[in-house]
Amino acid sequence: MFMFEKPLGMVDTLPNLYEVKKKTRHAMTNVIEQWGFQFIETPTLEYYETVGVQSAILDQQLFKLLDQQGHTLVLRPDMTAPIARVAASKLYNHLYPLRLAYSANVFRAQQREGGRPAEFEQVGVELIGDGTTSADAEVIALMIASLKEAGLENFKIAIGHIGYADALFKEVLGNQERADVLRRFLYEKNYVGYKEHVKGLPLSSIDKERLFSLLTLRGGIDKVAAAKDLVSSRAARDALEEITQLWSTLEAFHVTDYLKLDLNIVSHMSYYTGILFEVYADNVGFPIGSGGRYDHLFEKFNRAAPATGFGLHIDRIIESLKMTDEQQLQCVIYSLERRTEAIAHTNELRMNNKRVVMQDINGIKDVDAFTKHFEEVVYFIGSRKEEL
Amino acid sequence: MFMFEKPLGMVDTLPNLYEVKKKTRHAMTNVIEQWGFQFIETPTLEYYETVGVQSAILDQQLFKLLDQQGHTLVLRPDMTAPIARVAASKLYNHLYPLRLAYSANVFRAQQREGGRPAEFEQVGVELIGDGTTSADAEVIALMIASLKEAGLENFKIAIGHIGYADALFKEVLGNQERADVLRRFLYEKNYVGYKEHVKGLPLSSIDKERLFSLLTLRGGIDKVAAAKDLVSSRAARDALEEITQLWSTLEAFHVTDYLKLDLNIVSHMSYYTGILFEVYADNVGFPIGSGGRYDHLFEKFNRAAPATGFGLHIDRIIESLKMTDEQQLQCVIYSLERRTEAIAHTNELRMNNKRVVMQDINGIKDVDAFTKHFEEVVYFIGSRKEEL
Repeated sequence: MFMFEKPLGMVDTLPNLYEVKKKTRHAMTNVIEQWGFQFIETPTLEYYETVGVQSAILDQQLFKLLDQQGHTLVLRPDMTAPIARVAASKLYNHLYPLRLAYSANVFRAQQREGGRPAEFEQVGVELIGDGTTSADAEVIALMIASLKEAGLENFKIAIGHIGYADALFKEVLGNQERADVLRRFLYEKNYVGYKEHVKGLPLSSIDKERLFSLLTLRGGIDKVAAAKDLVSSRAARDALEEITQLWSTLEAFHVTDYLKLDLNIVSHMSYYTGILFEVYADNVGFPIGSGGRYDHLFEKFNRAAPATGFGLHIDRIIESLKMTDEQQLQCVIYSLERRTEAIAHTNELRMNNKRVVMQDINGIKDVDAFTKHFEEVVYFIGSRKEEL
Repeated sequence: MFMFEKPLGMVDTLPNLYEVKKKTRHAMTNVIEQWGFQFIETPTLEYYETVGVQSAILDQQLFKLLDQQGHTLVLRPDMTAPIARVAASKLYNHLYPLRLAYSANVFRAQQREGGRPAEFEQVGVELIGDGTTSADAEVIALMIASLKEAGLENFKIAIGHIGYADALFKEVLGNQERADVLRRFLYEKNYVGYKEHVKGLPLSSIDKERLFSLLTLRGGIDKVAAAKDLVSSRAARDALEEITQLWSTLEAFHVTDYLKLDLNIVSHMSYYTGILFEVYADNVGFPIGSGGRYDHLFEKFNRAAPATGFGLHIDRIIESLKMTDEQQLQCVIYSLERRTEAIAHTNELRMNNKRVVMQDINGIKDVDAFTKHFEEVVYFIGSRKEEL
């Protein structure tokens, strides 16, 4: 192994990108604070039996290790389960609704080279204890405000509801196993595979047509009418009613330009329980964020509560922003005899908010090469003649 | 296992402390940037064979795990070795001296309950490729400037040199094994144990007296004279000469009030190679930071270079600051019919930099209890009568 190798999926963030990331993080967390969400930090390592099992992430994606007491630990794969743990323990005396936020690295083990990152930063919020669509709307409106503050312009939130496709599949397919196969195709956004699979099912042509029609339920809020015609069950109607209410609240926030309806969104685990959404930006193939309502997680931590939240993937946001940040550095080079002058001059520059490297000339090998990359270089070197 | 348990040594940071930590971090990183150091981020997981082996942390304190390819990984126990990896690879084309900085969590496995934290944040710098005492002085002066900017007032930097005690032990004890035993006592600051052990050694009373005298070499820079008398070897004189130079540079930075000489400081591994230091603050039993010169690490990464740096332990700094930060939150409570008014009012408050929770009254169980903790509460509820 070469000394400079890193584990699969691990990356270094060099100075220019670091600055961009810092600015983006600052813009987003600032908005989140103004909306009255409070940031907390939780440990990188959690017990597998608690947070590991309850997270929405597949078991094979967890980094696991044994501690010295023989317990299995995981590197947190997301922040939702740790926040549930804190809300149910240390913050037990804080009344619901509780608004918590985080900016933290999460970990997902990767199988192969060149794949997705195994460690990445998420900025997100959880609104706990409020089951109204106002809470869902707040979370989505806040997410939009954060992205705008970060400088992102071209992005869309695709909004769906876990209950709608579930209701359709129940009516048409009856059994859970068949529904799971179709859900898998939707999760992978493999619509061709979905259609092929439906064609082969032992169903009437009317039922097949209904399953095909699901794929057309993407676009404006007006698609809700067609969606109502397609499934008549109570569960489907409730789902559509929630979406309609949500949309109307988001109109009051003046953010519907950023929305589209997508009744094909499903989550890969039985984690979300209602409205769910994904965020897409220009130039980025994967969602830059996602979220939704998860009303069953908190009962696992013995403090039952409805909850909704989002998580944004800061590296993908930066990718979409295509922002660059070349830091402007100045340099003061000195020799020992004039050190005091050099320090005074440097202090003054720094007080004027300049970033200044102060460098002893004896510590440099090649002064021409070294000074090339600075915006400005000032020298305090050599003895001064006594003035007469 | 209870659902809210955390692994040994792991802590949650709740909102008030989070804010204090954020402000402290911001103050320190801001100064570091102004001194022309560039921040980078490295992965939490590194290969044991590279960063794990080269770190200054004891093997038993490493969190280890196996990746899916069968390699042993470690959770980074410090940031110095990862930065050396980056300087020797991705930043290979950047000329020395290179000034890098970090603000990152590091990990140390703990053996027992109630002990030290197993994960904690360090803010630090590495100045790579400059072997002059100007570089050591810069790092120390910058550390002092960061601590002052963070609001810390009562702190002291104890400065020593690895070469001095080494030289004394070599002259008096000859063999390395005996020297290591005494070094261990000094590392643990167990001066009683040191004396007891010296008493039992088969040495002349003059030599024992010399070993006892080492313990008196703590205080002002004037102790250098006594130190010179105690050991005459070239190595000891070089060490004292470096300390004298360092002190004179730090005088030019006007920071000697923060310094004391301590020729008893040793590091627990053969990692530091020259000047080394520890920072102590009021009310905190452990050092809040430490650092020094380590001139042999970079050759392990195939880019030999002298280097010096510091790491500050942000939680301990906060402990010493005893700062509190109770966030002032306002609240706007609304019912659906008056949502638009509520949004407009909330937007205005947020634009004036207030932190405002906007809450649908239908999402609250007990409005009296919920509103108790806000600085101010405004209601937009109930229908308005049409004005005549």
